[in-house]
Amino acid sequence: MYSFMNDYSEGAHPRILELLTKSNYEQNTGYGEDLHSEKAKNYIKKHLKNENVDIHFIPGGTQTNLLVISSFLRPYQCVIAAETGHINVHETGAIEATGHKVVTVPSKDGKVTPAAIEQVLNYHSDEHMVQPKMVYISNSTELGTIYKKEELTAIHQMCKSKGLLLFLDGARIGSALTCQQNDLELSDIADSVDVFYIGGTKNGALLGEALVICNKELKEDFRYLIKNRGALMAKGFAAGIQFEALFQDNLFFELGIHANEMANKIAFVLKDCGYSFYAQPCTNQLFPIIPNNLLEKLSKEFLFSIQTKIDDQNTVIRFVTSWATTLESVDALTNFFIKNSK
Amino acid sequence: MYSFMNDYSEGAHPRILELLTKSNYEQNTGYGEDLHSEKAKNYIKKHLKNENVDIHFIPGGTQTNLLVISSFLRPYQCVIAAETGHINVHETGAIEATGHKVVTVPSKDGKVTPAAIEQVLNYHSDEHMVQPKMVYISNSTELGTIYKKEELTAIHQMCKSKGLLLFLDGARIGSALTCQQNDLELSDIADSVDVFYIGGTKNGALLGEALVICNKELKEDFRYLIKNRGALMAKGFAAGIQFEALFQDNLFFELGIHANEMANKIAFVLKDCGYSFYAQPCTNQLFPIIPNNLLEKLSKEFLFSIQTKIDDQNTVIRFVTSWATTLESVDALTNFFIKNSK
Amino acid sequence: MYSFMNDYSEGAHPRILELLTKSNYEQNTGYGEDLHSEKAKNYIKKHLKNENVDIHFIPGGTQTNLLVISSFLRPYQCVIAAETGHINVHETGAIEATGHKVVTVPSKDGKVTPAAIEQVLNYHSDEHMVQPKMVYISNSTELGTIYKKEELTAIHQMCKSKGLLLFLDGARIGSALTCQQNDLELSDIADSVDVFYIGGTKNGALLGEALVICNKELKEDFRYLIKNRGALMAKGFAAGIQFEALFQDNLFFELGIHANEMANKIAFVLKDCGYSFYAQPCTNQLFPIIPNNLLEKLSKEFLFSIQTKIDDQNTVIRFVTSWATTLESVDALTNFFIKNSK
Amino acid sequence: MYSFMNDYSEGAHPRILELLTKSNYEQNTGYGEDLHSEKAKNYIKKHLKNENVDIHFIPGGTQTNLLVISSFLRPYQCVIAAETGHINVHETGAIEATGHKVVTVPSKDGKVTPAAIEQVLNYHSDEHMVQPKMVYISNSTELGTIYKKEELTAIHQMCKSKGLLLFLDGARIGSALTCQQNDLELSDIADSVDVFYIGGTKNGALLGEALVICNKELKEDFRYLIKNRGALMAKGFAAGIQFEALFQDNLFFELGIHANEMANKIAFVLKDCGYSFYAQPCTNQLFPIIPNNLLEKLSKEFLFSIQTKIDDQNTVIRFVTSWATTLESVDALTNFFIKNSK
Repeated sequence: MYSFMNDYSEGAHPRILELLTKSNYEQNTGYGEDLHSEKAKNYIKKHLKNENVDIHFIPGGTQTNLLVISSFLRPYQCVIAAETGHINVHETGAIEATGHKVVTVPSKDGKVTPAAIEQVLNYHSDEHMVQPKMVYISNSTELGTIYKKEELTAIHQMCKSKGLLLFLDGARIGSALTCQQNDLELSDIADSVDVFYIGGTKNGALLGEALVICNKELKEDFRYLIKNRGALMAKGFAAGIQFEALFQDNLFFELGIHANEMANKIAFVLKDCGYSFYAQPCTNQLFPIIPNNLLEKLSKEFLFSIQTKIDDQNTVIRFVTSWATTLESVDALTNFFIKNSK
Repeated sequence: MYSFMNDYSEGAHPRILELLTKSNYEQNTGYGEDLHSEKAKNYIKKHLKNENVDIHFIPGGTQTNLLVISSFLRPYQCVIAAETGHINVHETGAIEATGHKVVTVPSKDGKVTPAAIEQVLNYHSDEHMVQPKMVYISNSTELGTIYKKEELTAIHQMCKSKGLLLFLDGARIGSALTCQQNDLELSDIADSVDVFYIGGTKNGALLGEALVICNKELKEDFRYLIKNRGALMAKGFAAGIQFEALFQDNLFFELGIHANEMANKIAFVLKDCGYSFYAQPCTNQLFPIIPNNLLEKLSKEFLFSIQTKIDDQNTVIRFVTSWATTLESVDALTNFFIKNSK
Repeated sequence: MYSFMNDYSEGAHPRILELLTKSNYEQNTGYGEDLHSEKAKNYIKKHLKNENVDIHFIPGGTQTNLLVISSFLRPYQCVIAAETGHINVHETGAIEATGHKVVTVPSKDGKVTPAAIEQVLNYHSDEHMVQPKMVYISNSTELGTIYKKEELTAIHQMCKSKGLLLFLDGARIGSALTCQQNDLELSDIADSVDVFYIGGTKNGALLGEALVICNKELKEDFRYLIKNRGALMAKGFAAGIQFEALFQDNLFFELGIHANEMANKIAFVLKDCGYSFYAQPCTNQLFPIIPNNLLEKLSKEFLFSIQTKIDDQNTVIRFVTSWATTLESVDALTNFFIKNSK
Repeated sequence: MYSFMNDYSEGAHPRILELLTKSNYEQNTGYGEDLHSEKAKNYIKKHLKNENVDIHFIPGGTQTNLLVISSFLRPYQCVIAAETGHINVHETGAIEATGHKVVTVPSKDGKVTPAAIEQVLNYHSDEHMVQPKMVYISNSTELGTIYKKEELTAIHQMCKSKGLLLFLDGARIGSALTCQQNDLELSDIADSVDVFYIGGTKNGALLGEALVICNKELKEDFRYLIKNRGALMAKGFAAGIQFEALFQDNLFFELGIHANEMANKIAFVLKDCGYSFYAQPCTNQLFPIIPNNLLEKLSKEFLFSIQTKIDDQNTVIRFVTSWATTLESVDALTNFFIKNSK
């Protein structure tokens, strides 16, 4: 049974495995101070068109999020996120466990707006309330939507004018930056945020996120902070090698393009069959609204996740495609809907 | 230049890489709930001769240590460790960052004794002091020494009689259990401690530690705790596959044996050349005392680490061997000493 | 200018000051292990008709809240509170600073309902989300409303059936238990919750909250927890003496009655003048809706706080009365409204 | 039975109680923003001969210590303290509970030296170890000794040259600054440290410590930090009034002088009787070495505390005098020794 549950079901892209295998017997310096990590960082900087950033490889997304938030906020400061934000909903309190409140803004499409940020600032007026100091956004968002350049710029300006740090969670930035609606480049992001990360786990790596610190005031002693949170891997080179493979050419983006193409095909057919979507299809996560009476049948042939019951007769489900999604499985899925939708 | 810096310089044992490659396109359930992790756990349980333990794969050692300690202690409770203990010295305050004091006992050989534990208990007499609740030991220790069965049993009994939890850090348990002086089996450890871990990173895996919870009162909701600390990997199967390869047969132990044999050869020659050791050679870490005037020359041919200046003329250095250490490099090192020692 | 800003503007009730003065030169054991604290606890237990509770005096409310929540939750567990709850809004992230998320439920009147609790439980379904383990309610609430016996019983039963701890913040329990609509006694509360506190600061003491632990499983080592959070006062007897004065007879309740009477007078006149209220007047906090054009004039004669702008022309303000509120000042306030309202 | 257990057995100095009583019905702004707190701060600044400090009143000493340390250190940074330091031994892990390691230096007399600080710095050489960032000293120390001007200056210079913050715990600064050996003034301390506090609790107040932030880079948002740790008292004026009484004239120092005089008398007689001391008598804490066979008899007439068993036949005990110690009780104690010592 084919799974559209998520984009981290398979191992690593073969070119990553190849490089891991090829360099297997080299002796590397530990803790990410090896030559592969060095190379990987340089490749990424080239893609960023920016030499003035610090890059660190962190094993996973939750860890990257908690590390960033706890490192750059003082104890009484909070982070603003969309209600749907990963750090608010799906990290088992990992952010709060480091001592910081997540203050949420309502969001229909997974995005944060300058107006919503301003409302939070107006409300938090004195020392009896947490002090907002950081804005967390994800691109693509938890609903598969993306930020357009104009939107990101507006948030950036709001943050700058209010003294807020801007943190972009790029667990799915590969899909975001390669989708049709996108008008952002990696370098735009580095110019607009204080810190962000480039997700490896959900875009073809076995593990690893490349954290990019753009704001130079945040760079100091960051390796201490990584270690202090338990995120400094002895074999840091294993992440370095993977990002080397992803960024020495355009592999990272090719994988995003593939995932998006697979999603587009599914979205196209679903629309054609008359289904509507909870959030506009855009990247590799699709949220079609499916009549409940089709769900059981669908679930006998495919794995997917339930997002929410939208009314008595319909359910929002989630399909996720990835670098490893086969055309064959997409065809099977679209055929299912063509057959079952009249 | 050959490195004896540590046991995590190379990638993964080829049989691990093979299994990763072979299963690369399988679709796995996320977050460690996949079939490979299931299999790996079953293999480990067989080696433990114990079905009644819970096993979780955690990306790294510091993370495992902080997770265990913060999960099982209440806020006012502390962990007792040897002065030389990894959690006391080399984790950048990662344990304290979770809110817990590490209370140390002096130790010449890296080991904790029942008498030392009792002294801590006697001193911590009232509610104005932290309450000791856990003992942390490592096997092999940070000085390469091991616990004999008798010693472990004595600590276990002291802990039981005093209501203390016993936690064994097995980052290098592969080397410990396969060295000549060892009289412990994995099953003895599971019988003697409340929780321990089997280190993959330092024994041939790319990453991953297998945390074994033996005390059933500690098992509840542990996956919540892993996630809460950012240690639940999306591609948990990547760790599962590695431990499957290590434990489906005796690979894990074979790798320990190899590392120890390489260390033994070095120790034998060094002793023969008249060098003494800061801690008795036993496992894959050696701490020879080297005259300062030899250090520079040695460092031009080999990588190693400085442990401590023992007096004006001599320095304790550390050589570490591993699953990947070649006989050729060992010969080069021993030849160096044979040539330079008279 | 008379202040209706809050119920902690004046010092202590004279009978409290008297007892402090009278016992000033006695030599007391430190850290709350003195005879006055002992007596105070016994008096409170009599009022509770319950010998089987543990009582601890804590300097302030925020500290009591953070102490309770952090002591009884494991790291991945959260507390459920009304959106308006003090711990959510007005404690500068003090709860999150101890590592725990506050999950909120919408509330018009400051109260939590069993249905709202159930909704939170249904939503938090797996280990990727925080685990709800405690419900926080305040009586009276932050909007001056109270829980009726039936309501508290319903919450209690919901909590019991779902394995949730129930924590009642009684910073203003004096006013709550002595208002006209109330049908609860202190003993009902001790029977219904796992832990609660009796607020001294807002009911005539200089400082101090009496924390009552009803659930025997929560009692162990609690003095360690108090000290660990910095809340164990060297001169604990200073709080003990104050609670002795408050509970050796009915002073605590008399002070609540007075505060409520003063509030009732104000509420009566305001209603009579045609003003409506944001939350139904009940205890010593009143939330009248005042036309903006009256605000400036009012603020020249009285101190009060702004709650929220309810529409373009009206504002919800807050008046608070206390044990120290004089009839004269109440008359001045009511006269203001009589004069200015037609 | 008279107690020499500690300096917080009695209530408040009568002039403090008087001022509390006199101002009891005034209506004050909450949370320390009242006029009494304002006045008290101004009086203290005059004594400090320094307008450029920020002063905050905190309820207790442990809370002040944890607040300072957690506010000014980043997560991976530690504080250096003497082994005997209050924060290391007697705060139930309250510092570690905020996430920071206390790294200790050996100390015979309770004092920290520049050499000891330097040794810690040399040892903590890389990002795998905590980073020392603050030095904690207490004056008088936990052994009753004091820092001379020369010693404080030397520590200050070491800290400055190494980028360390210097924090002085002044829980017993009243006794320290008024003892015969002292050559420091309050203003010297403000010039030498980054932050310190003036202890009220142990020098005649019911509660309260005056935290003085001298380093202007540490001042920002400190009220947020106080609230975030639960240390912002609603009736902050109650502490303000007490410090007003202590500092509007020289009361604070007079109380220290009295305590020291009482201690001197005891020390004089004890020396005369041939007893030696564990630490040189200096301030209001005395640590005489008493033969075990005298202990039981002594404990039938006086309360005191046991410090440590120094050998098989002798025990170090602690006598503490205070603002409230009577000449009569001192005479009783000295007579006991005169009678029982030959």
